[in-house]
Amino acid sequence: METLSENACFGGKQGVYRHTSAACNCDMTFGLFLPAEAQDGPVPVLWYLSGLTCTHENAMTKAGAQAWAAEQGIALIFPDTSPRGEGVADDEAYDLGQGAGFYVNATQEPWAPHFNMWDYIAEELPALITENFPIDPDRQSITGHSMGGHGALTLAMNLPGRYRSVSAFAPISNPTGADWGRKQLSAYLGDDEANWAKHDASLLMRDVGFQGPVLIDTGASDQFIDLLRPEELSQAIAQKRQQAVVRLQPGYDHSYFFVSTFMEDHVTFHAEHLWA
Amino acid sequence: METLSENACFGGKQGVYRHTSAACNCDMTFGLFLPAEAQDGPVPVLWYLSGLTCTHENAMTKAGAQAWAAEQGIALIFPDTSPRGEGVADDEAYDLGQGAGFYVNATQEPWAPHFNMWDYIAEELPALITENFPIDPDRQSITGHSMGGHGALTLAMNLPGRYRSVSAFAPISNPTGADWGRKQLSAYLGDDEANWAKHDASLLMRDVGFQGPVLIDTGASDQFIDLLRPEELSQAIAQKRQQAVVRLQPGYDHSYFFVSTFMEDHVTFHAEHLWA
Repeated sequence: METLSENACFGGKQGVYRHTSAACNCDMTFGLFLPAEAQDGPVPVLWYLSGLTCTHENAMTKAGAQAWAAEQGIALIFPDTSPRGEGVADDEAYDLGQGAGFYVNATQEPWAPHFNMWDYIAEELPALITENFPIDPDRQSITGHSMGGHGALTLAMNLPGRYRSVSAFAPISNPTGADWGRKQLSAYLGDDEANWAKHDASLLMRDVGFQGPVLIDTGASDQFIDLLRPEELSQAIAQKRQQAVVRLQPGYDHSYFFVSTFMEDHVTFHAEHLWA
Repeated sequence: METLSENACFGGKQGVYRHTSAACNCDMTFGLFLPAEAQDGPVPVLWYLSGLTCTHENAMTKAGAQAWAAEQGIALIFPDTSPRGEGVADDEAYDLGQGAGFYVNATQEPWAPHFNMWDYIAEELPALITENFPIDPDRQSITGHSMGGHGALTLAMNLPGRYRSVSAFAPISNPTGADWGRKQLSAYLGDDEANWAKHDASLLMRDVGFQGPVLIDTGASDQFIDLLRPEELSQAIAQKRQQAVVRLQPGYDHSYFFVSTFMEDHVTFHAEHLWA
């Protein structure tokens, strides 16, 4: 593992690291914020999964999360959103291929050799960071934005016991029923929709739900709201009697101005359960 | 004036606007954050001047200032750092020309026709924003980073009564004695160093000082600290018996991870004096 940068930040350290990923069969880069408390022993960690077109860097520089994570004494991990590099398949569209891994293990060509973001986020990267940094593997929570909100919710519901709490900012909530989803799930997983169900937060919520608390924020003026389909997830949460807070925020759009506005709420929410 | 974007942000609004500048003889773009309180009447404003290579956008997206400005009910203005455009002179170096206006009125060719950032920040932009937005012209303070810290300090000391308080993050503190300064002052103002003095914070501090409180933060591990020369300004502040807090922050570098870490302190400092 190679250190690309380390900057002092809110009393802790914001690092960027590169490593060879077995899951993705290429080099992968991630950001990790460690609070000051990490100098004295393992700290809880909040995963932040980013959206379409993002790298590890967007949320790390624009979400303002470190201020609140430092206050709560928790680490933040910012993974990339897909495999990358010259030998890695790509597409001209912004919403397929590099920058658009959708947090699945691709079974279809040309994606299958590298696009295994599910295994990368669920298995490889957690093992790597708990081995190399003072991270407590028993205290993990997860959040994300847009495609990353989809990733956070589907990982949380598919891995019971892994995360203490889950939240999302403007998540893609029903990808099997929207253009942000059907295109990618078809490309990565093939046309048998039975293989898509475990990657749809609304279907999972109806089926299994989440064993802990859920927090979801979506801007009521989100310019992509018809692609996100928050109404499907809201209905599923109510049907499941899932412990959850679901908020529609008037005037807010899909940008990081929206994400940063509600970041304090999300970090505080997770910290409460990470430290419980 | 043209609205390029407006995003809901921390209960207020982050806007980006473009206008034709008489001072710079070209179109100029700036960011303006208005807190929720601006809906009810004029609010105080904190100017944030950016550093070399920056546009209006860097601090607007990476400094995390809106969170604290919203809490304090004050506006933030993020001007660009130079004139820009095809007809505007430029240089291949990152530290001269576009992105490096140094907050002076250039008298030398080829810069004189457009590089009048002093007049732009001191006169034209204040008039524009107080005419078009609910900004209280009697409640202004100023801060900045690196070259922008130089701008903030020199404007504050040259315009007594204009700003209630001044602060800076890692300011270029003694440009007449450093490579970040001598090159640019020579290019923009010519070789007569008598014309440089009003653009050197350390010289100004020795000579006139500032009529209000001063806050300065510099990272003790700043990779550019030999170019910034904080020791000259510190000495001048002590000699002048200037009301000031000067802090060297161990471990911090020149990045926005440093700026964002101490932004809450700076916004709170200014708010105290803006609301007094």
